[in-house]
Amino acid sequence: MSMQQAEQDRIFLERAVELAHQNIKTVSGGPFGAVVVDEGRVLAEGANRVVADCDPTAHAEVVALRKAAALKGSPHLEGCTLYASCEPCPMCLASAYWAHIGRIVFAQSREDAEAMGFSDAELYEQVPLPPGKRSLRCERLELPRARDLITAWKDSEGKRPY
Amino acid sequence: MSMQQAEQDRIFLERAVELAHQNIKTVSGGPFGAVVVDEGRVLAEGANRVVADCDPTAHAEVVALRKAAALKGSPHLEGCTLYASCEPCPMCLASAYWAHIGRIVFAQSREDAEAMGFSDAELYEQVPLPPGKRSLRCERLELPRARDLITAWKDSEGKRPY
Repeated sequence: MSMQQAEQDRIFLERAVELAHQNIKTVSGGPFGAVVVDEGRVLAEGANRVVADCDPTAHAEVVALRKAAALKGSPHLEGCTLYASCEPCPMCLASAYWAHIGRIVFAQSREDAEAMGFSDAELYEQVPLPPGKRSLRCERLELPRARDLITAWKDSEGKRPY
Repeated sequence: MSMQQAEQDRIFLERAVELAHQNIKTVSGGPFGAVVVDEGRVLAEGANRVVADCDPTAHAEVVALRKAAALKGSPHLEGCTLYASCEPCPMCLASAYWAHIGRIVFAQSREDAEAMGFSDAELYEQVPLPPGKRSLRCERLELPRARDLITAWKDSEGKRPY
């Protein structure tokens, strides 16, 4: 990694951490901040809005990714870097994959999140379990009409795969 | 499970699958639908809006969970059931945990999603990997100001944990 890249990482990650500190003061949600950077410039910033917006998905990373994608006019953010004050939870990590984020840099660990009362570490244990073994009951019920979706999607002429 | 519960499951899951079929016609995004049910009644419905909204997080389940939480006026949906036309991806599964959903019922599997061209199965392999081993590079950079977040959050008097 070049000196310039290391210095940029430090600056953008410090900004994500600062957003987390600010968010504690505004009581909008958890103490988390995130920044999406595109070609060395901040494209979008986010802080946790779970409480303020009554939105369980409004983690800082998701807020920043959604803003960035809206600005880009595309659900994909190829080549962008996501800076997060804390290690992304499985929801935020998977969101970054779906957004085609190129790289993630974070400061606090999932254990730090746990120390602040958040269940990120536990979620990382739950997600890989077989659906029937999780604390959140997940059941499959097969339906013929669901099987038809595969053919219907394949035959759809106007579809825009992503 | 009671006969009534089994019948309800089938009805609500069929609705989620129907939303997926409709979504193929409107080309708003992927062929996925979801329904949040509260005390035997539909609280919110969702279909994939990734393409239409330029939002990488707008999976059917996330759309339905966000609507349901907004209607409840709370990020938490205790006791609610999430019906999804397809097994939720790690993002949607973790969203359901954060939303305190009581139970998930789905029709298609992650392999069916793969057959339709979606990387859910691969994501389930990526998420549990150590941050340094993933195809999406994830790096930790420790910062003193990030360590301060733990104390700042603990000392915050107005905080609303979730």
